[in-house]
Amino acid sequence: MSKEGEEVSNKQILFRGYVTGSPKESDMVHKNSTIRLKVPEGLKAVVVKNLYLSCDPYMRGRMTKHDDAPSYIDPFTPGSPILGFGVAKVLDSGHPNFKAGDLVWGITGWEEFSLISAPETLFKITDTDVPLSYYTGLLGMPGLTAYAGFNEVCSPKKGEYVFVSAASGAVGQLVGQFAKLMGCYVVGSAGSSQKVDLLKNKFGFDDAFNYKEEPDLNAALKRYFPQGIDVYFENVGGSMLDAVLLNMRVHGRIAVCGLISQYNLKRPQGIHNLFCLITKRIRMEGFLVTDYFHFYPQFLQSTLQYIKEGKIVYVEDTVEGLTNAPSALLGLFTGRNVGKQVVVVAHE
Amino acid sequence: MSKEGEEVSNKQILFRGYVTGSPKESDMVHKNSTIRLKVPEGLKAVVVKNLYLSCDPYMRGRMTKHDDAPSYIDPFTPGSPILGFGVAKVLDSGHPNFKAGDLVWGITGWEEFSLISAPETLFKITDTDVPLSYYTGLLGMPGLTAYAGFNEVCSPKKGEYVFVSAASGAVGQLVGQFAKLMGCYVVGSAGSSQKVDLLKNKFGFDDAFNYKEEPDLNAALKRYFPQGIDVYFENVGGSMLDAVLLNMRVHGRIAVCGLISQYNLKRPQGIHNLFCLITKRIRMEGFLVTDYFHFYPQFLQSTLQYIKEGKIVYVEDTVEGLTNAPSALLGLFTGRNVGKQVVVVAHE
Repeated sequence: MSKEGEEVSNKQILFRGYVTGSPKESDMVHKNSTIRLKVPEGLKAVVVKNLYLSCDPYMRGRMTKHDDAPSYIDPFTPGSPILGFGVAKVLDSGHPNFKAGDLVWGITGWEEFSLISAPETLFKITDTDVPLSYYTGLLGMPGLTAYAGFNEVCSPKKGEYVFVSAASGAVGQLVGQFAKLMGCYVVGSAGSSQKVDLLKNKFGFDDAFNYKEEPDLNAALKRYFPQGIDVYFENVGGSMLDAVLLNMRVHGRIAVCGLISQYNLKRPQGIHNLFCLITKRIRMEGFLVTDYFHFYPQFLQSTLQYIKEGKIVYVEDTVEGLTNAPSALLGLFTGRNVGKQVVVVAHE
Repeated sequence: MSKEGEEVSNKQILFRGYVTGSPKESDMVHKNSTIRLKVPEGLKAVVVKNLYLSCDPYMRGRMTKHDDAPSYIDPFTPGSPILGFGVAKVLDSGHPNFKAGDLVWGITGWEEFSLISAPETLFKITDTDVPLSYYTGLLGMPGLTAYAGFNEVCSPKKGEYVFVSAASGAVGQLVGQFAKLMGCYVVGSAGSSQKVDLLKNKFGFDDAFNYKEEPDLNAALKRYFPQGIDVYFENVGGSMLDAVLLNMRVHGRIAVCGLISQYNLKRPQGIHNLFCLITKRIRMEGFLVTDYFHFYPQFLQSTLQYIKEGKIVYVEDTVEGLTNAPSALLGLFTGRNVGKQVVVVAHE
């Protein structure tokens, strides 16, 4: 490699512009660019080769400019690559904490190679006897989301009744398993019989149902939770939330992780049953995993142990090739993915 | 008085039957009954003379049968007297904790005299150098609601920005004063210029506005809270809640005490901005004062002290005569009352 670094071609997926309603594949544009595989002199940056990219529902929020209530994270920049969590290999480093050959996970670009100018935000990967892609899911942001959201926000107790929506997704499948490990009774909802089967037979949920086959969600929840729900891990919002409110128990807790059913609507559905918050003294609390990154070491240690003991399993839905990333991302909103949606850019 | 007790006439207000939508005065029926002023042999009950009755928004909930999600308290019994908090004087007691002449507050009937069969639920009044009617408001259920709701549910800190809706009501006027005593910046909303004037000039709110004169509640809140809201004490619900959600600060708290704007609707309005719970990591928590009755002694002691020092004031809206109780109760839902709505049945 020359002093300036080899200039190589770099396929990218650029964000076209702000979206209202449902994003389309054409909102993400393919580009053949080039990049020098060398950190420019004086920059505390790293150049990485992207291996696995993560498709996560929160990314939809970055496609819209929220003038009325700015979000916790800036929107994508039109004309620049889509940004998201991923697993990457450091090729060159101007930062003392990283060196060529390091494996990392964190926010990177949807492209073959990225220059990451603030590598302090990256996590170094030291345990490589698990699939590396797990650091986009089970051992990455979604895993910590499930861990912190369940343990810290839900205040769960052994024997409680736990309901998880979008339960076979990147986060939901783990919430259910953490809840079982704590000794809770856990039911999940998902959008196909295949996913329901996974919940019951792979992830060990006590029960599960296909919400698309339930014309009356309130009746469904009454059937699965005749005693009511102590803890609801909310991933979907909309009519499911309204039905859950009617079925919560006194002093129940709702951890609001996501509202995926609402992200592509021009105006979110109205929630009508908030009076239940009073009658049942419910605590409903939104959270962001970024507030819990300091839990990562303890989360990683205990979860690796669980994986080794076979007490936690994980299902990924993998597509090959950066060019398939846009459709993989959009598939989250129709429930096309079965398990954590991963895009393979390169196998090291 | 004879051994069976004197039989006297007893004017009553009976509950006619379950209500949907807005209750009318005719849903509450006047009756001339009789009562013996003596506890029947063997009953651990008390017979009381009702002095002051309390009109409270939660009473609307007892006029409806909630088949779908039973409430925390049974509906009224058609054909029986309306029940509510009140101040009363014990005339005869079969219970060891009470004797004739005791003053009490607690749940009693909308009638001149009541036989209370579970007097353990009553609080004995020992401090009588304040207006007795205060035990329906400032020193009764609404006062403890404000105290526990603000201090225990809102987790307030000095210097925080606090918003109170229905701020001149029985609870709101106290929340604002407790918040000021803690060193918060407090703004209240109410439904008339007279109430706004009370908030600013009597209760010491930093600012106040008439929500009926604000076509855009979001814009109004941005004006009064350019830095955003840390704590919202929720009394009204509906479009105010949606606007508040847009204006909350990160890690804000919403204590849901009541949703009075919704109680007479056949279907509550939808709340559309719950996604803000996530982006701002908001905790929204419903509560009932009944969970905090064990705080009553400490609340009473500190609040009596504040009253004596002139640090807390209280405004009541008093109507004379049991016959005016139904219209006084209904007035809560149109905002007719200015301050705590009290009905005087008898001045001792």
